[in-house]
Amino acid sequence: MPHIHLNSDLPGIRGLMADRPDTAAPLNVLADVLLRGESPLLRGERELIAAYVSERNATRFCAGTHGAAAAAQLDGGADLVEAVLRDPGTAPLSPLLRALLRVAAEVQEQAAPVCDETVAAARAAGATDTDLHDTVLIAAAFCMYNRYVSGLATSQPTEPGYYEEAGLRITAHGYAAAI
Amino acid sequence: MPHIHLNSDLPGIRGLMADRPDTAAPLNVLADVLLRGESPLLRGERELIAAYVSERNATRFCAGTHGAAAAAQLDGGADLVEAVLRDPGTAPLSPLLRALLRVAAEVQEQAAPVCDETVAAARAAGATDTDLHDTVLIAAAFCMYNRYVSGLATSQPTEPGYYEEAGLRITAHGYAAAI
Repeated sequence: MPHIHLNSDLPGIRGLMADRPDTAAPLNVLADVLLRGESPLLRGERELIAAYVSERNATRFCAGTHGAAAAAQLDGGADLVEAVLRDPGTAPLSPLLRALLRVAAEVQEQAAPVCDETVAAARAAGATDTDLHDTVLIAAAFCMYNRYVSGLATSQPTEPGYYEEAGLRITAHGYAAAI
Repeated sequence: MPHIHLNSDLPGIRGLMADRPDTAAPLNVLADVLLRGESPLLRGERELIAAYVSERNATRFCAGTHGAAAAAQLDGGADLVEAVLRDPGTAPLSPLLRALLRVAAEVQEQAAPVCDETVAAARAAGATDTDLHDTVLIAAAFCMYNRYVSGLATSQPTEPGYYEEAGLRITAHGYAAAI
């Protein structure tokens, strides 16, 4: 049961956002800019970073939602997402995306400079400044969304197919449209 | 030295924001809503939560900036902020604010439900649903800002009085004006 009273039984962040349009608005605009705005990284790749960080934070609602959004937008689909959430080291990824997921993992662990070696490995795999910036900020942002969703003990969706539907909705309409 | 090239020598998040107005805009609007928008918590109290989380994350730039903004807006000034950053258990705080800082500390530690006991203690000290919501989201948001600032290894300010001036600027003009 959530730690605070919510006016709906919408799961995860959606119940919080329905009750608090004041904070929902910038949170959704931020998600839209990070995951769907201009970036050298594909939308599906950015959703994959978001899902991977959420999985590492054990925030099932966000891992499910963004994993589904990644699956809907990447050639490898749900199989690729599942492989990445299990172990990006063995998943069929480009060397660049694998290296960026290592950057994201360090950001998830703590608020400390990403290791020079990890940055150097990402650059060796072709990472630009913008790739690094966007990866760090997406990983950091999901450390916020995950804590918001998990900290207040929000509920999980119960309908079958919830995440798949959310992934398609996000792919078609984005986040700003959610409010 | 920062992990990516920046076009200015502005310290902390400011150099990142100067180079990336697309991401700076929602980040600043979010800070403004969380720290200066409508809430049962005073602006100075919310800055104190932000500074405390940043201190726990060892992100000196954010702890200094938001500590100065708290000092500028709370009766206890810099002495109170210093006492809180050292140990909120012994700092001269209201029972409510002390209990909310314990909630914030749990959110800082990991993306997991705040303990029932911690929530119950906050409610016993007078916390409302809105106090709890705002505390959790502020703490979560600073886990993002701190990781962005520290993860990319941004620089510290070198001018003496930098933080005091930032605290006064924020108090007078807020965050949305920074961009």
